[in-house]
Amino acid sequence: MPLFTRYARLLLRTGLDLQKGQTLLINADIEAAPLVRALTEEAYQMGAKEVQLNWSDEACDLARLLYQKEEDLTSIAPWEAERYNAPSRGGCAYLRLYSEDPQGFSGVPAARQALRRNAFSAATKEAQRCRATGVSPWLAAAYPGAGWAALVFPDKTAQEAQEALWQAILSATRADAPDPDAAWRAHQQDLSRRTEWLNAHAFTAFHYENALGTDFTVGMPEGQLWAGGRSYTREGRAYIPNMPTEEVFCAPHRLKAEGRLVASLPLSHGGSRVEDFSFTFRDGAVADFAARVGAETLESILSTDEGARRLGEIALIPADSPIARMGLLFYNTLFDENASCHFALGRGYAECVRGGEALSEEALLDAGVNQSLTHVDFMVGTEDLRIEGLTASGRSVPVFANGVWAF
Amino acid sequence: MPLFTRYARLLLRTGLDLQKGQTLLINADIEAAPLVRALTEEAYQMGAKEVQLNWSDEACDLARLLYQKEEDLTSIAPWEAERYNAPSRGGCAYLRLYSEDPQGFSGVPAARQALRRNAFSAATKEAQRCRATGVSPWLAAAYPGAGWAALVFPDKTAQEAQEALWQAILSATRADAPDPDAAWRAHQQDLSRRTEWLNAHAFTAFHYENALGTDFTVGMPEGQLWAGGRSYTREGRAYIPNMPTEEVFCAPHRLKAEGRLVASLPLSHGGSRVEDFSFTFRDGAVADFAARVGAETLESILSTDEGARRLGEIALIPADSPIARMGLLFYNTLFDENASCHFALGRGYAECVRGGEALSEEALLDAGVNQSLTHVDFMVGTEDLRIEGLTASGRSVPVFANGVWAF
Repeated sequence: MPLFTRYARLLLRTGLDLQKGQTLLINADIEAAPLVRALTEEAYQMGAKEVQLNWSDEACDLARLLYQKEEDLTSIAPWEAERYNAPSRGGCAYLRLYSEDPQGFSGVPAARQALRRNAFSAATKEAQRCRATGVSPWLAAAYPGAGWAALVFPDKTAQEAQEALWQAILSATRADAPDPDAAWRAHQQDLSRRTEWLNAHAFTAFHYENALGTDFTVGMPEGQLWAGGRSYTREGRAYIPNMPTEEVFCAPHRLKAEGRLVASLPLSHGGSRVEDFSFTFRDGAVADFAARVGAETLESILSTDEGARRLGEIALIPADSPIARMGLLFYNTLFDENASCHFALGRGYAECVRGGEALSEEALLDAGVNQSLTHVDFMVGTEDLRIEGLTASGRSVPVFANGVWAF
Repeated sequence: MPLFTRYARLLLRTGLDLQKGQTLLINADIEAAPLVRALTEEAYQMGAKEVQLNWSDEACDLARLLYQKEEDLTSIAPWEAERYNAPSRGGCAYLRLYSEDPQGFSGVPAARQALRRNAFSAATKEAQRCRATGVSPWLAAAYPGAGWAALVFPDKTAQEAQEALWQAILSATRADAPDPDAAWRAHQQDLSRRTEWLNAHAFTAFHYENALGTDFTVGMPEGQLWAGGRSYTREGRAYIPNMPTEEVFCAPHRLKAEGRLVASLPLSHGGSRVEDFSFTFRDGAVADFAARVGAETLESILSTDEGARRLGEIALIPADSPIARMGLLFYNTLFDENASCHFALGRGYAECVRGGEALSEEALLDAGVNQSLTHVDFMVGTEDLRIEGLTASGRSVPVFANGVWAF
């Protein structure tokens, strides 16, 4: 079976569990066309109602960001929003393929990037909510674009770099296993054992500490529900929103974060890069921050809206995870977040508190789940990271020791 | 100046006369990305409000045509129609780049192709009307896609074929002239001289005859207006709807066509091919037709709607036109129609009768201008073609002799 077909099947079956009669919406750069064609063919073979392709092109997007007037940059036509909202409302399976050069927009002021991104997020809020509430199953996956490959493997030729990144993607997504579906079942069992342990302990808070300078406590909401690997649609069908995924994650309480949190890896955001940065939290919000490189990018993220200064995700990944062992910096959150414990600023997932998917935005806020137009991961894991879980009775339980699971 | 930039400028300036603050809508296959990027960059430099890219991919479109259920194939989402109608309503400049393999859909039954095409045409009727009435200036141009190039130059390697087709496109569009804009001004002068002569004579009918078996008379509407090269927007700005263009054309009277019309070149339509075909007209409508190859494709065109059996365009091109002299069969109407006298089944242009752009569809029908969802050109020019113009007083004036202009 050709490689693209094998990978396409894994994404559509184990990943999205695409159903007969369901629409598949693919958001991809035109560079990913070879894989998109295999996905389209495979989806129709599986009985998809329609494969809707929302193509983009990084060079044309760059021209827009550089040249368009501010009022036009932030204007999203109703049809353009409906292009995402309408199929999502109808329960489409949504596939976002990442292939772009993570530094492709580095020549664009962060504030202009944020203007466009936020206008687009606001216009497609309904689609996001459909994904967040199990109406529209979704999957973020990857394709080795030339610019991205050159960044990850700067010492290789263009062709070698793309092949090496392709191998890394296949390996990270277990697509190179003899039986990829079986490999994902075994992986899911391990993730489920961790989430069940965490849910059973229902820690009220976690304390983080390492030699990098992190000394940080984050509180958890009532009814916290840890998840890892699969999510569920409203009809109870399992899907996997990220491939690869190594994390178990939850939503922290949006009002409960105190102390200093130091990033352990650079952050690539909207084509720009932030390096050597840290946050200081008070009452759940970022009270102060510093960055050696890209402070203005951090500033633009934090000023997206009120929720952008608070945490929406807490995620645990051991320092010896398969992706961490590759020793590669992908400059892409989908991969790098699976190599390191991390948090996200911005939106929390409704599924992370009991009954959350039925709650309104206001009720989620009351429950402690953060709301925002944005959701930006940043890495905090190190090989000396120690995490303690604090129970309601005041007991302290080791969760991580020396960067890996303590249980 | 890089070749793509040079060609992009010709299309945007001489072709579309793109204005500051105007939206540019580009409809292109992803294979044309190198040119689309140059167009996008150039358009923003010229002050475009937005460059909206409606990408397609021939392989993904083929999968849709092959596999999608009939009810889904004919269902065009409201947002998808608005994607064309909304910018057209706003007076966008519309650029359609042809690069696709003209036989790319030959494995799809003609009836299924027609289902999709007609559903799409019906949904985007407003955009078509905006183009037909000078609200939205438009331009059909080309890019040498690999499949198309291989068809035109079957004896060359893939790369040589693409380069040869690129050269042919640049030559046919005068983009290889020392001063392309000046070359177009001279070309326009010649076309204008022909149209003025034809308009001054206001022939009531034309009689066609050649050794291929054509013996055909077509009547003309009152207030006929021949055009060639440029068209005008409602605001009076000139634009060129086809590059290349060598034809002078008008709308024949939809109820006045009698006799036998034999095609002189194959017809490529929606990825299928029709060869050695002819029509017999009575009272303006196709009463009979024959084709050695592709009769079912003709049948599907003719059964689009009532207007598909009648003529919407009459076009005169001498057999020694620059494109005819290339001696290439492009399998693409944009080029092949400029190598030969032709007619079109289906929709006529409102601008082809005096005051037509202000008329409703019903009034246009009354004036004799045909209406239809479709518009399909077919070639009838030969090196022995004789065309006589008949005046109101019954005089016969030579228009073409031995395949070329007689005046």
